[in-house]
Amino acid sequence: MSGRPAVVLLSGGLDSATAAAWALREGFRLAAIAIDYGQRHRVELECAADVARHLGLEQFEVVPTAIGRFGGSALTDNEIDVPKGPPTGEIPVTYVPVRNLHFLTIAAARAETLGATDLVIGANQVDYSGYPDCRRPFFDALEATLNLGTKVGVEGRAWRIHTPLIDLTKPQIIELGLACGVDYGLTSSCYDPLATGAPCGRCESCHIRLAAFAELGMDDPRVARMGQAPG
Amino acid sequence: MSGRPAVVLLSGGLDSATAAAWALREGFRLAAIAIDYGQRHRVELECAADVARHLGLEQFEVVPTAIGRFGGSALTDNEIDVPKGPPTGEIPVTYVPVRNLHFLTIAAARAETLGATDLVIGANQVDYSGYPDCRRPFFDALEATLNLGTKVGVEGRAWRIHTPLIDLTKPQIIELGLACGVDYGLTSSCYDPLATGAPCGRCESCHIRLAAFAELGMDDPRVARMGQAPG
Repeated sequence: MSGRPAVVLLSGGLDSATAAAWALREGFRLAAIAIDYGQRHRVELECAADVARHLGLEQFEVVPTAIGRFGGSALTDNEIDVPKGPPTGEIPVTYVPVRNLHFLTIAAARAETLGATDLVIGANQVDYSGYPDCRRPFFDALEATLNLGTKVGVEGRAWRIHTPLIDLTKPQIIELGLACGVDYGLTSSCYDPLATGAPCGRCESCHIRLAAFAELGMDDPRVARMGQAPG
Repeated sequence: MSGRPAVVLLSGGLDSATAAAWALREGFRLAAIAIDYGQRHRVELECAADVARHLGLEQFEVVPTAIGRFGGSALTDNEIDVPKGPPTGEIPVTYVPVRNLHFLTIAAARAETLGATDLVIGANQVDYSGYPDCRRPFFDALEATLNLGTKVGVEGRAWRIHTPLIDLTKPQIIELGLACGVDYGLTSSCYDPLATGAPCGRCESCHIRLAAFAELGMDDPRVARMGQAPG
């Protein structure tokens, strides 16, 4: 297979599946990493594996990290409830301290051992939950940091963090993914899924996702596949 | 206890023990983290615990990370020998991809859950092995990245990565640590220690350390305590 190697962060959600499919279409050879950080929505790790298989990625691995044990987020601390309702415009309690930065250092470490300097992440700063680590100036700063702090950087190769979804609305992301052949029935976006893996339909992430499919006049294929908690 | 909280990365080596002692003298309340990254010189994790106890730090924990399993370094891959001899001026095979950046994201995640924005690391860019992630411009870039990508950053509190040793020579570091009461017999700098934990005396890290103690007209208290491999 030709193409440049890249490492993609695959969360099991809608966005990262779309970003991976975009990168494949761009000709990258993809090593995918899903991070097990003790998230309560662990079904997404199975979804990440399903997406990697579905897209035919060259490599997929689940990498554990201990940062979840520090707590401080509704996604990692069972004492903090996942809020229900649409985004409020403030940074929500589902914020996980330093998450994307930490995850991208894992992706970069993997990339450097593969000889890759391209990273792909499905972050977007339009229809999102207000997380500061989903905005492009953050990724620009991290590229500069990687260029200064890694061997490949000081040897003159430039890191590139690809954020193909960064300025897309959620409906636009879904349209891009459908054009790239993504099966969204394999992806899970819910922060607080049922034991079956079905989405709760009420957390902020479900709100954003369901509104986007509704705007496109579509049913969410995940709901069709898994059912959904009774409203 | 008064003072601002800070998180210090404690490796078990000479530099980080000195940085921690400096931070205590500056009045910081310290939570220390040692990172278990699968390093072959695992004795340093015991040394980190000893140093934390010796300095009376408020908190100490060993945090595991999986980046060592990616290999690509003599420190994490048993197939790659640790080179013997003084530093060559090039980035050596003991370079661990993205190490300090990754470690500092763990420290920052811990800090954010503690309400701290001060991080302390014993990096220095003078008598060192040529690692790009030990130079101040890298830490400056990371501070900017953290300010953009974390909740406390966007809320207007500025991250500060303290590198008190950054422009010191190794003898100057030792003098600083001695002035702050560090017992260097508790610290291990060797990349390839004997099974007993004694330093090999021949790797680049041993070369730098032994030369510094010799310049000060002192014996390395670690050698006095543990012995050393026969030359």
